[in-house]
Amino acid sequence: MHFEALDTLKALFSNQMSVAPSVLESHSRDESYPESHLPDVVVFAESEADVLKVLEVARTHQVPVVPFAVGSSIEGQVVPVHGGISLDLSRMNRVLQIHQSDFSAVVQPGVLYPELSRQARPYGLFFAVDPGADASLGGMASTNASGTGAVKYGTMRDQVLDMRVALISGEVIRVGAKSRKTSAGYDLRHLFIGAEGTLGVITELTVKLHPLPVAVAVAKVTFESVQDAVNCAVTVMGAGLSPERIELVDARAVQAVNQYKGTHHPETPTLWIELSASGEVLLRENLEILRECCMESYATSFILAREESERRELWESRHHAFYALKRLHPEHDSHTTDLCVPISRLPEVVQHTEELCKAHGLDAVLLGHVGDGNYHVLFHGDAKNPAQWESILQVSDLMVQKALEVGGTCTGEHGIGLRKRKHLTQEHGDLIPFMRGIKHLFDPQNLLNPGKIF
Amino acid sequence: MHFEALDTLKALFSNQMSVAPSVLESHSRDESYPESHLPDVVVFAESEADVLKVLEVARTHQVPVVPFAVGSSIEGQVVPVHGGISLDLSRMNRVLQIHQSDFSAVVQPGVLYPELSRQARPYGLFFAVDPGADASLGGMASTNASGTGAVKYGTMRDQVLDMRVALISGEVIRVGAKSRKTSAGYDLRHLFIGAEGTLGVITELTVKLHPLPVAVAVAKVTFESVQDAVNCAVTVMGAGLSPERIELVDARAVQAVNQYKGTHHPETPTLWIELSASGEVLLRENLEILRECCMESYATSFILAREESERRELWESRHHAFYALKRLHPEHDSHTTDLCVPISRLPEVVQHTEELCKAHGLDAVLLGHVGDGNYHVLFHGDAKNPAQWESILQVSDLMVQKALEVGGTCTGEHGIGLRKRKHLTQEHGDLIPFMRGIKHLFDPQNLLNPGKIF
Ligand SMILES: Cc1cc2nc3c(=O)[nH]c(=O)nc-3n(C[C@H](O)[C@H](O)[C@H](O)COP(=O)(O)OP(=O)(O)OC[C@H]3O[C@@H](n4cnc5c(N)ncnc54)[C@H](O)[C@@H]3O)c2cc1C
Ligand SMILES: Cc1cc2nc3c(=O)[nH]c(=O)nc-3n(C[C@H](O)[C@H](O)[C@H](O)COP(=O)(O)OP(=O)(O)OC[C@H]3O[C@@H](n4cnc5c(N)ncnc54)[C@H](O)[C@@H]3O)c2cc1C
Repeated sequence: MHFEALDTLKALFSNQMSVAPSVLESHSRDESYPESHLPDVVVFAESEADVLKVLEVARTHQVPVVPFAVGSSIEGQVVPVHGGISLDLSRMNRVLQIHQSDFSAVVQPGVLYPELSRQARPYGLFFAVDPGADASLGGMASTNASGTGAVKYGTMRDQVLDMRVALISGEVIRVGAKSRKTSAGYDLRHLFIGAEGTLGVITELTVKLHPLPVAVAVAKVTFESVQDAVNCAVTVMGAGLSPERIELVDARAVQAVNQYKGTHHPETPTLWIELSASGEVLLRENLEILRECCMESYATSFILAREESERRELWESRHHAFYALKRLHPEHDSHTTDLCVPISRLPEVVQHTEELCKAHGLDAVLLGHVGDGNYHVLFHGDAKNPAQWESILQVSDLMVQKALEVGGTCTGEHGIGLRKRKHLTQEHGDLIPFMRGIKHLFDPQNLLNPGKIF
Repeated sequence: MHFEALDTLKALFSNQMSVAPSVLESHSRDESYPESHLPDVVVFAESEADVLKVLEVARTHQVPVVPFAVGSSIEGQVVPVHGGISLDLSRMNRVLQIHQSDFSAVVQPGVLYPELSRQARPYGLFFAVDPGADASLGGMASTNASGTGAVKYGTMRDQVLDMRVALISGEVIRVGAKSRKTSAGYDLRHLFIGAEGTLGVITELTVKLHPLPVAVAVAKVTFESVQDAVNCAVTVMGAGLSPERIELVDARAVQAVNQYKGTHHPETPTLWIELSASGEVLLRENLEILRECCMESYATSFILAREESERRELWESRHHAFYALKRLHPEHDSHTTDLCVPISRLPEVVQHTEELCKAHGLDAVLLGHVGDGNYHVLFHGDAKNPAQWESILQVSDLMVQKALEVGGTCTGEHGIGLRKRKHLTQEHGDLIPFMRGIKHLFDPQNLLNPGKIF
């Protein structure tokens, strides 16, 4: 990076920037992608004005800018592969407004979703997208994140009403409307959702909030096989019970969680299903229907968790499953994948995965937001053992191919980043010229997070 | 239009095209926009292959193509202002698949939404977007239509999983995925939703279906003033009852409906609120909460409609209110507008509208999907009386301005078409260069529905 650019940044951001090795290092990688690359400098924006100043320096000196919030993404999204500025937005972390009767909030991009829910709680509201990591709203919008709540409330795409976006040109645009609906022209809002920081920097979001459910319970339902669990999930979704959450953890995932959290869940394929209702009576009725569904689907046990503390612990376990799994084999590298298929095809696809793993002698853990047809497989192995690692990557590729064959997608929620670029080509190769065209419209010099998505 | 182009079309589509004056005329206008323009020819596509053939002729001879389904749009969207081909898609009207356990259907673009719901019914499912006219899925996707069901289920944007789109280049692309979620690259699906036929021709859609509600009732709730009714709607939404529908009709709208349908609803501002529940007991509980909300909001009466026939009749009345209103003053021209604001701002905005109408001595009817903050005002007058017509247009403009001031949008569901182009400039003037850029990517020669949106 040009000295002049660095000098300008120093003059503008004296105590809001860093070139300290530890800071550069922490902005060089994400939570899972194997490769890292140092930025030249990290700037901590505290306002939209700061963001605009950084973009101006970048534009003037042709320096790449990589937006960075929490860095919890896992496909390589925040890695500054071409160096330049890592634009850290974590200090833009204020909840600006909560509109109780509009069921909405206005937030800065660096607000973490648990913090938004915490602040919305006194209003009887919460924010419904909850990835496993304590991610930021801006980062989550940029990967179209989802989580356990998506089966009922949808993904980030369904929650964002309106955003302010700073463009590399120095313009700030507003996309969307603060009303629930709009049909005003082409929908640019949805271009920025899922754009992984390649089109502009989100500086403010207006998002939906939802009423806190009144009566809630979680059923812990065990099965002999993953197949049975998946079939049960399909049945439960078909029963129209509209669960708050329906998560699959396989035996290894439960084992990992038990070790990590000191819990004693039976180490067998399990569904954790949360139901809510507007009152206790109805909740009990629905739980009974759920129990019947599960028993007909060959569940081996059905245990309810009614206490809030127990439920909280359970979802925390689920949210931390990824870390727990990594701990199972600390000596190994891990490789994770994220696929989504129409739910009716899930049993077939999961069987395909199991067969592949068996054929290749791979130890893999399966878990997922199965109510959406979204599942993750975590492989572990020695990245320095080429034969082993090659077969992990190969199985992973074959899984993507299968998901695409049944009408699914190469990523349900983690996005493309660096790792899935080839799969995007498989899935939407014909669309890539149009995506590039759109990129060119907003960022003609390819300065915003270059190298990502395509 | 070039003779050669017409000859080619004749050779290709002998009995699937028409230049008969009555056919040209019926493709020259929509249901409300005051001006019309004849196409040179109407072609009735029966397959995606037909659509591609038409696009090839258009491309070769530089002839405009205007997709046309039912023609029920009301902002001038289907008017072929530059002549050319009106591409009628109404014969592509097959429901191709219903996937019960995926809660989805695959349809051709000319399928009318009531027909899709009819075919989904045996599976216990229905399609949740219901504009007043019996519109097509392709047309509805193209205007991002909604209706009475949007308050619970969202708009077209929330229902479309995946589409096939024929581009003017002759390519057919697939945007979206058949799975519930995807984070694979820029979201082009949402560009085509609401694009009003300016970017490509939708040839197939995969859409969500929803379980039919089990226990349903409609409350007919009357008020002394529109203000009271609107305040009540805000309260009901805040109570988290999640109504299936919540519609406002003012006194004149009820009067129109009574005349049109021979009904005897009290001619006073009214909310029609539909609640559903998974069982009778719960429904009764919720209706009680609803009754209390309404009574606290100064309702003057609260009457339940429990019979399916009565409910059906009521929603039919609501759906036909637009026609009923036009009948009230058959000697007059009408002008309608469609705005949407954050619901908390609705009382203030409605008051503003009422004051404006009073100040200008205008007779206006207000109705709307108020649970979303979406409302319509229907003016009538003599378009040949410049003073009167001018003041209608002026009030209509001031209403848009007010909606934008409170964070709303110039169109909640009807789209831009010809009529609202200047309002799109007011709302998103800074985005128009980007919209034009996107248009240029997909349709560099501006052949698809030219003159619309911007
Ligand atoms: C344990 C664990 C569990 C996870 N579980 C889930 C899950 O259930 N569901 C899920 O969807 N994901 C999950 N993830 C992935 C990750 O949490 C999400 O991708 C999340 O959206 C990233 O948010 P972040 O704030 O960390 O963003 P970052 O990782 O900092 O950035 C993500 C991307 O967004 C861009 N970006 C960030 N802020 C902005 C901004 N303001 N403007 C423009 N671009 C910006 C970045 O450049 C980058 O491309 C998990 C990750 C971990 C480690
Ligand atoms: C009485 C009445 C009530 C109404 N109520 C509502 C309401 O509650 N909510 C609402 O949203 N709207 C409402 N409308 C407006 C209208 O019904 C909607 O705009 C509807 O979406 C239009 O659908 P259509 O099939 O008639 O499309 P058309 O009017 O034929 O076309 C609409 C637009 O879509 C384009 N188009 C059509 N098919 C395709 C395709 N396959 N590919 C690409 N482009 C295509 C056309 O070029 C045009 O720009 C109402 C209209 C009337 C007359």
